Amino acid sequence: MRRALWLKNKQLFILDQTRLPTRAVYLRCRTLSDCFSALRKLQVRGAPLIGVFAGYAVYVSLKDRGNTKKSFPRQFYQVLECLRKSRPTAVNLFWALKRMEQKFQAVQDSSPEEIMEALFEEASAIHREDIRACTAIGKYGLSVVEKKDRILTHCNAGFLATSGDGTALSVFYQAQKAHREIRVYNTETRPLLQGSRLTAWELLQRGIRTTLLTDNMAGFLMQKKMINKIIVGADRITAHGDVANKVGTYSLAVLAAAHKIPFYVAAPCSTFDRLLIRGEDIPIEERNPQEVKEYAGKVVAPLKVKVWNPAFDITPSRYITGFITDYGIIRPPFLSQIRKTFTHG
Amino acid sequence: MRRALWLKNKQLFILDQTRLPTRAVYLRCRTLSDCFSALRKLQVRGAPLIGVFAGYAVYVSLKDRGNTKKSFPRQFYQVLECLRKSRPTAVNLFWALKRMEQKFQAVQDSSPEEIMEALFEEASAIHREDIRACTAIGKYGLSVVEKKDRILTHCNAGFLATSGDGTALSVFYQAQKAHREIRVYNTETRPLLQGSRLTAWELLQRGIRTTLLTDNMAGFLMQKKMINKIIVGADRITAHGDVANKVGTYSLAVLAAAHKIPFYVAAPCSTFDRLLIRGEDIPIEERNPQEVKEYAGKVVAPLKVKVWNPAFDITPSRYITGFITDYGIIRPPFLSQIRKTFTHG
Repeated sequence: MRRALWLKNKQLFILDQTRLPTRAVYLRCRTLSDCFSALRKLQVRGAPLIGVFAGYAVYVSLKDRGNTKKSFPRQFYQVLECLRKSRPTAVNLFWALKRMEQKFQAVQDSSPEEIMEALFEEASAIHREDIRACTAIGKYGLSVVEKKDRILTHCNAGFLATSGDGTALSVFYQAQKAHREIRVYNTETRPLLQGSRLTAWELLQRGIRTTLLTDNMAGFLMQKKMINKIIVGADRITAHGDVANKVGTYSLAVLAAAHKIPFYVAAPCSTFDRLLIRGEDIPIEERNPQEVKEYAGKVVAPLKVKVWNPAFDITPSRYITGFITDYGIIRPPFLSQIRKTFTHG
Repeated sequence: MRRALWLKNKQLFILDQTRLPTRAVYLRCRTLSDCFSALRKLQVRGAPLIGVFAGYAVYVSLKDRGNTKKSFPRQFYQVLECLRKSRPTAVNLFWALKRMEQKFQAVQDSSPEEIMEALFEEASAIHREDIRACTAIGKYGLSVVEKKDRILTHCNAGFLATSGDGTALSVFYQAQKAHREIRVYNTETRPLLQGSRLTAWELLQRGIRTTLLTDNMAGFLMQKKMINKIIVGADRITAHGDVANKVGTYSLAVLAAAHKIPFYVAAPCSTFDRLLIRGEDIPIEERNPQEVKEYAGKVVAPLKVKVWNPAFDITPSRYITGFITDYGIIRPPFLSQIRKTFTHG
């Protein structure tokens, strides 16, 4: 089965997501520069996958650098600092780097070889936990999916966005196993078309039929009652349940509310940033205007035009029906229920 | 100054809108087949422009066909029938063809030369009226525009969509003349990118600064209070004020209501289809899936994926703050006010 990331003899491989759906090209990430570039160019993307990748990225960036016990800490923190700067919004990146840092601090008195071993183990642990979290999300998600549901999703929150079965799409895969006969619709997700390039491709790989539409058709789709549910992923969720996710999520949530369509967000524990209170405090990555003005080198707008290109938006918690997490479904009131879920979990 | 359509020695020329913004290519439409194809391929588009073009298309399609008085009616109705089938949604097409038919019926006992002359005159009349209507819309529209307004528009409702200064964009041009210092935002308008390819280009031609965004960013733009008004065009408006316009308009209208942002529709009298009561009765053109699966000729989705591609959507009148028409601003209650405006006008 195709995966977004895998290890072979402790070497890190990814599927280059910028080449899909026309080509399935694999990349080996050998150095810090390879890893940083893969993150920046979105060759590897999706909040949970970024977390898993970051863990291994720390390891491969430090490997074969001939570090001594003395030079190790400086090298380690340089790597950490660089990776932290790759993408600002998805909290899983910072969460995974924090875990790698804690592991490093726990073992820093050991030999470089032992430290490397411990770092690889920690990255593997993050990886294993992500796979398990994806499956748990899918299984818990089944409780909100009924037979013949017609569900819209946005961007890509599937096996291409995680190291397991995905978040939102994991629910679809479990529904498929449980013969719920759901019907899927997915937005193309401009500007980088993660919906048409990745989600449509991924669902076809798994034998799930989806109908593709442009982002601006979603309102009309709801008006015509062609869908009865929305499930999306998330890049960061605050203590109050405000959600940063791919730009366009907020529009969908407002439209869903206007049409009384339940709106679910699927995400693992690691996407919850419980130190952050308000959605407005989540840093939103603004990307290169060329992403909007060009596609695959083809100019589609006047070169001189100004562009606004936020990669994410913020959906206030009042638009969210529930969170589908690896610890169960969380329903309002979110502040207390999010706290309760992850404290008991 | 660039125009979307013009006549020279009774020959019909258009700017090929599929080639913008990279190339300004002119086409001469000599035959019925040229005209039909220009309409189908959206080389000529925009509801009012389609009307003006259709008038002349009748003329050029009948020219040089060596019609006798006897063969003329059959030829005339064949041309009419063919043009009627080119696009289903914009009512201006049917309105203009109806006028050409009425003119034909009034002069059908004359010689073929005289009939041709009368048809050319009628098409010219439609053309002149459209130019005047655009200017009137712009001037009336000034009453809803304040200094430093930040206005979002969708698709293209400018000089590329009419034979004059446009509908929604005519308001911007009048605001520019009146030094209102407005700030314009425009959506790219997938799938055919009339926003990035046409509106951004057109506004730059006229020295108006605009900021381009993808369709799915509009909600976030409103949440961040970056705009305080929306003005769009229309392809057909019913007696009740329900509006068919480029797909995505409905999403914008619902988002505008949720953010308490006034939502105006600018259109000439000829876009009102007062025989139609309910928006649901407007035929919605569904176009080729390739428009969604490709982006500027580049494949961006799996070939096997199913696509939903309605070219227009319906915005119920309750979402509309007012209509900016060539007969003045129309405010609710729309049924009576629309009737009153055009009966007195």
